[in-house]
Amino acid sequence: MADKIGFIGLGRMGKPMAANLVKKGFALVVHDLNQTAVKDLVAMGAQSADVPELARDCSIIVTMLPSSLEVEQIALGDGGIFAHAQPGSILMDMSTIDPLATDRLAQQAATKGLSMVDAPVGRLAEHADRGESLFMVGASDADLARVQPLLNAMGTTTHHCGPVGTGGRTKLVNNYLAVTLTQVNAEALALSQRFGLDITKTLQVLLGTSATNGQLRMNFANKVLLGDTTPGFTIDLAHKDMSLVVAAAHASKVPMPVAAAVHESYSLARASQHGGLDFSGMADVLCGLAGIDKPRVPKGWTPG
Amino acid sequence: MADKIGFIGLGRMGKPMAANLVKKGFALVVHDLNQTAVKDLVAMGAQSADVPELARDCSIIVTMLPSSLEVEQIALGDGGIFAHAQPGSILMDMSTIDPLATDRLAQQAATKGLSMVDAPVGRLAEHADRGESLFMVGASDADLARVQPLLNAMGTTTHHCGPVGTGGRTKLVNNYLAVTLTQVNAEALALSQRFGLDITKTLQVLLGTSATNGQLRMNFANKVLLGDTTPGFTIDLAHKDMSLVVAAAHASKVPMPVAAAVHESYSLARASQHGGLDFSGMADVLCGLAGIDKPRVPKGWTPG
Amino acid sequence: MADKIGFIGLGRMGKPMAANLVKKGFALVVHDLNQTAVKDLVAMGAQSADVPELARDCSIIVTMLPSSLEVEQIALGDGGIFAHAQPGSILMDMSTIDPLATDRLAQQAATKGLSMVDAPVGRLAEHADRGESLFMVGASDADLARVQPLLNAMGTTTHHCGPVGTGGRTKLVNNYLAVTLTQVNAEALALSQRFGLDITKTLQVLLGTSATNGQLRMNFANKVLLGDTTPGFTIDLAHKDMSLVVAAAHASKVPMPVAAAVHESYSLARASQHGGLDFSGMADVLCGLAGIDKPRVPKGWTPG
Amino acid sequence: MADKIGFIGLGRMGKPMAANLVKKGFALVVHDLNQTAVKDLVAMGAQSADVPELARDCSIIVTMLPSSLEVEQIALGDGGIFAHAQPGSILMDMSTIDPLATDRLAQQAATKGLSMVDAPVGRLAEHADRGESLFMVGASDADLARVQPLLNAMGTTTHHCGPVGTGGRTKLVNNYLAVTLTQVNAEALALSQRFGLDITKTLQVLLGTSATNGQLRMNFANKVLLGDTTPGFTIDLAHKDMSLVVAAAHASKVPMPVAAAVHESYSLARASQHGGLDFSGMADVLCGLAGIDKPRVPKGWTPG
Repeated sequence: MADKIGFIGLGRMGKPMAANLVKKGFALVVHDLNQTAVKDLVAMGAQSADVPELARDCSIIVTMLPSSLEVEQIALGDGGIFAHAQPGSILMDMSTIDPLATDRLAQQAATKGLSMVDAPVGRLAEHADRGESLFMVGASDADLARVQPLLNAMGTTTHHCGPVGTGGRTKLVNNYLAVTLTQVNAEALALSQRFGLDITKTLQVLLGTSATNGQLRMNFANKVLLGDTTPGFTIDLAHKDMSLVVAAAHASKVPMPVAAAVHESYSLARASQHGGLDFSGMADVLCGLAGIDKPRVPKGWTPG
Repeated sequence: MADKIGFIGLGRMGKPMAANLVKKGFALVVHDLNQTAVKDLVAMGAQSADVPELARDCSIIVTMLPSSLEVEQIALGDGGIFAHAQPGSILMDMSTIDPLATDRLAQQAATKGLSMVDAPVGRLAEHADRGESLFMVGASDADLARVQPLLNAMGTTTHHCGPVGTGGRTKLVNNYLAVTLTQVNAEALALSQRFGLDITKTLQVLLGTSATNGQLRMNFANKVLLGDTTPGFTIDLAHKDMSLVVAAAHASKVPMPVAAAVHESYSLARASQHGGLDFSGMADVLCGLAGIDKPRVPKGWTPG
Repeated sequence: MADKIGFIGLGRMGKPMAANLVKKGFALVVHDLNQTAVKDLVAMGAQSADVPELARDCSIIVTMLPSSLEVEQIALGDGGIFAHAQPGSILMDMSTIDPLATDRLAQQAATKGLSMVDAPVGRLAEHADRGESLFMVGASDADLARVQPLLNAMGTTTHHCGPVGTGGRTKLVNNYLAVTLTQVNAEALALSQRFGLDITKTLQVLLGTSATNGQLRMNFANKVLLGDTTPGFTIDLAHKDMSLVVAAAHASKVPMPVAAAVHESYSLARASQHGGLDFSGMADVLCGLAGIDKPRVPKGWTPG
Repeated sequence: MADKIGFIGLGRMGKPMAANLVKKGFALVVHDLNQTAVKDLVAMGAQSADVPELARDCSIIVTMLPSSLEVEQIALGDGGIFAHAQPGSILMDMSTIDPLATDRLAQQAATKGLSMVDAPVGRLAEHADRGESLFMVGASDADLARVQPLLNAMGTTTHHCGPVGTGGRTKLVNNYLAVTLTQVNAEALALSQRFGLDITKTLQVLLGTSATNGQLRMNFANKVLLGDTTPGFTIDLAHKDMSLVVAAAHASKVPMPVAAAVHESYSLARASQHGGLDFSGMADVLCGLAGIDKPRVPKGWTPG
């Protein structure tokens, strides 16, 4: 018999995800504190249940909740998922939560004979509406095989990142970049504006250079990640340019806290005798100072 | 008669640039403290001269020097360029220097009947070797027309950014992004390594998402730069993700100073009541707090 | 009959605190996972019990645990303090934890007819050994009266900060300053060393000026906290000095991330038109930007 | 014959300093672009002169100018102090400028047979009005002896920090602390306000603890500066508290960029295996990472 699917958390992301499951023929049992959302799903063909009942009846239980606190509350305790689910069932948490909470939950799941999958969602709410989400999944191969049909119904791209816990961790790395770049772009544009530059001209320049982080694909993938830090552009020169940026920003009253933090990181790299490396070598400097293995790809690897 | 070209500063970048000018037939007079570099250029067909003589003889004088200090020393004072150059000559400074120094020099140049162009160089030293540099130029249209043949001999791309002073300022904006992204990438990779993720898998995910700053092209160009900050992904949600990143980094001993600075910027945006904007709206928040005009492109503009 | 006291958490701080209670005649029931610590206390005259029994028998229950997680685990759930304590009892948490966890616990306590006090501990472990700790207490007047004898047995100073939740929050403000000052001092001394200054001479200067934060007592208490931001030393001038500091630090390879962050804060204050205020007015600038009430003391108030 | 004193720069600080010299009987020649200030001093008994004349006539020349740029302009060049001063004269720069500019000036002075003293001014403008300034002086013993009478006329405290260049550097270290503490205090008070704490209660607590940087005097002077980093309070525990601060600040929308930067510094200390040191050991960690000699005072040394 096909897996019966439980879905807990019908918010801005969860509701269209659940809707896509129903539309594509999955037997769905839903739960949410918001009764309007529940009724909408029931109108589409889903059943409604409280948590213990849902946990008893479903072999795959999806959670899509705001934070670690809610996921742990609904999984643990007397009325929680783990107390009522059948052995062999899967909890697939699709929320974006603290990876240490995922680890704690996976440990608890194992003691009850349950499996855990973490599969946080990439892209925007509109993509979820259209069933075009991206998933970063931490799961065993066997568990992934069982949840893959659901993921296919809700999205278009699945990245299998490794065992449970790697999905959420990969999402954090990814969103660190995305969220940080926004602030970095904000500072660059504020500086351009304060300088009185023509914004379309500035964009034309930026979009044609490595400033748009083609360098992760190019400079990083072809140099430091292969262990090559012979300089194309040294940390010392990068630091010099950043000194000019910081000085100009202060002279023209543009607060650029990220520039300042970056400036200090380059200063630390220079103070610790790494000024002569290629500036992509900042990855090695940081990992070295923090006792982390340096990031390396196998020879011959190419970005897709 | 064709312009005679003076070239001061034959370092790692200046020497191949000067060499490309000689090779392509320009009459070149060179100057540098390093006599070996001078001799090499003379062997290729250039003349050598001291600064006053070079300034008297050349109608376009290029400087490619380490910092504001050297450029001001060689331009100003009794034995400097400005004291000896013929009215109507152009000083084209291609160094990367403090834009306020460029402004001071341009002002001095004007009082002597000279023109000033700032044309700092993009791309790497290898590109300069091959005559494939990129230039960000601040100049009047007339001055640009006079220096364009030189730029064509030394590189492949010229961005005319506006009047004198805009070349260096555009380079600072551009290099702020490039240099910052390197540290941002370094932190992301250090986090991935500490998390024990498969680095090739992480890269595959990152290179397929907006984490590689396609968002400047997409999210920024299509939203905030047109004045649209209705949320695709809110500042509040971005802040939540960054809180998870920072917590996870501290739990696993990954120092991420840029993440921390970004986190605070989002906190300030939320504290000043902007948490509901699309996260590309960080550009508006920063400009708003600092009294800077918000960055806007004309309707219908598209990134090239 | 006198209160029987439960004490959970016999670590480096908790053990001497419990010992002082026993020595001064309190009837003590202790609990810890570490049986050695329990035995030591029992040898001094305490009883030992598991959590439910301890909760049932004691009218004041002290917790001194590593983090929010442990306090919530021991307070909540089937075998927890709240499930077994008698109505009218007090949970006094002396751990340093997330104030939101304290709020959640206080709310839960109230639904069971229990009281909650938060009383984190100041000063060092040696002070706890000697019964010379300092306490920052959040409690109703009635609850404080009941726990005061315990506090007197364990320490010498009690600050009643307000209702439950204010003790931990006051400790966070206090420790923010103490911990931050250490890094600030570290950066100042690193700069002094890199400058090649005589360290005893530097200390002599620093210890005689407001650099040792006498300014909280003097400049803040007498100016901004009374609403007076007419300049003694302006934000603009403070920013200028910080610009020199940052430039000198970079020129001499001293990484000073806090200096950089401070520099940006002053830059934001200037960009938002506050450069002319006295530099103690930074408190008003930050509160203003973040929508927080400006800090004010009543006229005539003096620091003790 | 007594030294004739030149004084260049009659701004908010310079004017009262010059006035005090005249009042106390020094033969003073003044110069400033602002003729009103010059006239006021002449009315008090000073003479007025242009720079070359002033330089020729005076054996001690004081400069009190806004920045490195102005000091170098007035010292160097055809019409500058160095071109016209008599051998054996002293340039005493009392401005707060880039110490590298001071070094360049001192080198130039030496080639002309002149001496240089840097003696930047501590305390506020009101102190200068009353002749109660504090000076941090870099000078040879002989030069200090010659300028000491002037310093005595303008202030009450002279710190002889070492040879020329050490005065300005000591001022930078000192003002780094003073300016940073203001932002740190601002963040602490903003947090207190957002927490809804009673501000007078918070101040009472802070002013009684090491949060007011008594720890430089106590914890630093008695521990790390003697090479003792056995923990009273470890870096790990300090980091834990800072994690709570940062989490609480984000939960309550208090932007605390300095807290975030401090948090990362502690994270780096932990990642580089120093979490077990006393938190005053942050000074050793920073110096160690940056290749700077650790700060140490001689055994038996006590803060005054």
